[in-house]
Amino acid sequence: MNNVQNEFEETLKRIQSQNGVNGVIVVNNNGDHITSTFDNRSSVRHSEMMMKLADNAKRFVRNLDPSNELTVLQMGSKRREVVLSPGKDFIMMVLREQNHKSIMGIIGAKSL
Amino acid sequence: MNNVQNEFEETLKRIQSQNGVNGVIVVNNNGDHITSTFDNRSSVRHSEMMMKLADNAKRFVRNLDPSNELTVLQMGSKRREVVLSPGKDFIMMVLREQNHKSIMGIIGAKSL
Repeated sequence: MNNVQNEFEETLKRIQSQNGVNGVIVVNNNGDHITSTFDNRSSVRHSEMMMKLADNAKRFVRNLDPSNELTVLQMGSKRREVVLSPGKDFIMMVLREQNHKSIMGIIGAKSL
Repeated sequence: MNNVQNEFEETLKRIQSQNGVNGVIVVNNNGDHITSTFDNRSSVRHSEMMMKLADNAKRFVRNLDPSNELTVLQMGSKRREVVLSPGKDFIMMVLREQNHKSIMGIIGAKSL
């Protein structure tokens, strides 16, 4: 396994081991999920919505300032925090129970 | 001016007075901006994208858990933080320079 793959697996393990994290999906630029803790049908549905949301958010940020770039998208809800971390080749989604320390610091919005 | 209007104006003033905040837009459920610190043309464009983004995020959160509800949407970028706070009748957007304390605590994702 090459270096990038290694780092990728390490990052995933580190995130999944955080208490409160109950879902991770990684989608490539074609919208195909590379890895997912959800069943296939849910993964396909979530991946599609992830792509659309990340794309809208990127355009919104650029619309405000054409030289700027989205680094992280975080959705708070009554019970869960959803963080989308758009990378060069991937988008990572992490789903976590709301009453735990925010995962923002953990994924550090690092580009994959 | 009635109580709700009063509280609304107070919230806006409090947010705008925070250092680093350089833009606020409030959009009603029809997508019309009620108040904005941007020029009209930009306000119309941003309002449209805000509605779309908030709608996508609401559906994404419900898609993950039908009984759950989006309370706040935060976009981090290299230079700015954008926070969308969806309320019952309004969506508030606050734009802030990235190197200041997060505005999440200030708006507290209060519904308007």
